[in-house]
Amino acid sequence: MSNVSRLKLPHPGGTTDIWIGEGALKEARSAFGEWLADRRVFIVSTREIKSLHGGELTELTEKASEAIEFDVPDGETSKVLGTAAGLWQDMLRLGGKRDSRLVTLGGGSVCDLGGFVAGCFLRGIEYAHVPTTLLAQVDASIGGKTGVNLPEGKNSVGLFHHPKFVVADADLLETLPPEEIRQALFEVVKAAILGDSSLFELLEQEVDDLLAGNIRRLSEAARRAAKVKIDIVAEDLRENDRRRLLNLGHTLGHALETASGHGSLRHGDAVGHGILFALDLALERGLAPQSADRIRELVKRLQPSAIAGLDPKSVLAAMSRDKKARESGLVWVLPTGIGKARIVSDVPFEDVESHLAPFLSAPVE
Amino acid sequence: MSNVSRLKLPHPGGTTDIWIGEGALKEARSAFGEWLADRRVFIVSTREIKSLHGGELTELTEKASEAIEFDVPDGETSKVLGTAAGLWQDMLRLGGKRDSRLVTLGGGSVCDLGGFVAGCFLRGIEYAHVPTTLLAQVDASIGGKTGVNLPEGKNSVGLFHHPKFVVADADLLETLPPEEIRQALFEVVKAAILGDSSLFELLEQEVDDLLAGNIRRLSEAARRAAKVKIDIVAEDLRENDRRRLLNLGHTLGHALETASGHGSLRHGDAVGHGILFALDLALERGLAPQSADRIRELVKRLQPSAIAGLDPKSVLAAMSRDKKARESGLVWVLPTGIGKARIVSDVPFEDVESHLAPFLSAPVE
Repeated sequence: MSNVSRLKLPHPGGTTDIWIGEGALKEARSAFGEWLADRRVFIVSTREIKSLHGGELTELTEKASEAIEFDVPDGETSKVLGTAAGLWQDMLRLGGKRDSRLVTLGGGSVCDLGGFVAGCFLRGIEYAHVPTTLLAQVDASIGGKTGVNLPEGKNSVGLFHHPKFVVADADLLETLPPEEIRQALFEVVKAAILGDSSLFELLEQEVDDLLAGNIRRLSEAARRAAKVKIDIVAEDLRENDRRRLLNLGHTLGHALETASGHGSLRHGDAVGHGILFALDLALERGLAPQSADRIRELVKRLQPSAIAGLDPKSVLAAMSRDKKARESGLVWVLPTGIGKARIVSDVPFEDVESHLAPFLSAPVE
Repeated sequence: MSNVSRLKLPHPGGTTDIWIGEGALKEARSAFGEWLADRRVFIVSTREIKSLHGGELTELTEKASEAIEFDVPDGETSKVLGTAAGLWQDMLRLGGKRDSRLVTLGGGSVCDLGGFVAGCFLRGIEYAHVPTTLLAQVDASIGGKTGVNLPEGKNSVGLFHHPKFVVADADLLETLPPEEIRQALFEVVKAAILGDSSLFELLEQEVDDLLAGNIRRLSEAARRAAKVKIDIVAEDLRENDRRRLLNLGHTLGHALETASGHGSLRHGDAVGHGILFALDLALERGLAPQSADRIRELVKRLQPSAIAGLDPKSVLAAMSRDKKARESGLVWVLPTGIGKARIVSDVPFEDVESHLAPFLSAPVE
């Protein structure tokens, strides 16, 4: 049996074809060949990732008439308008047309930047993601969100532009540092809470194997987490409604990241704390204590880093500036059990305030 | 009977509601009020346009919780990434959210820039166009194309992002210089050739009244030209197929603009020459000589400015660099009669070459 899941995400412009699991690159090769035949392809990646996975990329894009590689800096620093502008100018100079293609090879930042560059080049060209991190495989590469950061806010400039293909090969994760796997597992746990109780059980059983980087088990967890995300996104492509479920742990999480200063708290850890805080609000709104205990236990096994010393006032201020806030107020995602959650927009601000101070001062044991 | 046409353009994200004609602003006011109620609205315009039409705008946006006005420079100079970046930063600082609104008030450049800014702000907010020029009323405001220029190419960065509303009030055209009306009429003639033989007859009868700025007759012509564009766009929202009909006169036109140097040949005039050149190619592919004569005659009554002295080689080079070119080659739109045209992708380059030298040296009488 193949260890690759073939998933499809229908969207207004067509369908994203997704291969995810061990050996995905090999299975996707013929579709890629057809898509790239006799066309220019622009590849957005980083020097480091290409030194690890450049060979796989060459095989995947061998049918293109020309493959033009762009190296961008690693991480969030490259997710800015200036980088995008430079790429657009180079693509024009190098003969890029509306039917040229773009492929990203990298983590979430490369996905977001590359998708944005493809989405705005000549009003949108087709592109594909080849995510090389667990986080990008289960999250950033799926759903068509693209964007760059402004000094005033992360991902504040971007658009929805769905990739034609996503090829998420678990074998690429072998070179991933264990800390990157740990960070990504918070999003996998989030997916399980939102929509897959059997994935949740699997995580309960295998979290240590996963943290240790067992590729076979990571592949299985990633396939299921991706499926949860795809199912939610497919019902709400522009994040007006159900898709906001994916913000479980993010309402507080983003604010913790902002309030703790750029880069000192990592996204996965912040989401972990955000999920724990959501449990406090959810318990008062009908979540069974046993379910809350199981969720808390699993999150803690991922060992979210300490957030002691954050000022509740600055966290609250960051929350109300969040770009996901609407003029009509903040939205919370609260678990209602294992494998289900709901969107709640009537949590009084005072409720949040009164829970936040004790939450921030209680250390995670 | 109302002099306002209510038209609808369905698109993947919903429907654009269009009011076009004399008194459109008044008829749109209640829908605008509902759309803006209790929300922040960002208005993108120019100082000059607001000095002419600021009062109408204030009435239209009076229900918003806050109306924040941004002045951008007039014309193409503001259609650059730097202007967009400044607007995004200001919008974030001023509390812009995903359910904030944006309204453009101005000509084609303001439409293109404002639509782009709305399309990429927090991955897309709703917006409306209030076009103040004839060209913007029949062309730029309809169809969801947005974008800014790079030094390497016009409109090379942008996206498809459809406005929620277009309010094209013919009364705003009273302040328009006659030269702007003449330029825009080339696009109106183009629309008639593509899809409305009775509009073509109306233009044959009324072209002098229209050139003289008769608002009642301009309103009628604009309503019909807009209808042609809407019908074509509705069938092909992402310019993969039928929408390319709208490029009638533009394949050569853009190249003439480029080859004659920035700004020395205006877009309408260039399109006029482009239509005349398309007739040469169309006559060899079955267009009846009488139809070609009528089209030629009407275009000449708009008096396209001289293009003598352009080098055929530089025009050909500009054509092959055109962003609408695909890797698979150039596409031509050729009239097949009055009110119909087809897309032709197999015109041999040598054919174009052999017609171009005599075309460029023959003065338009």
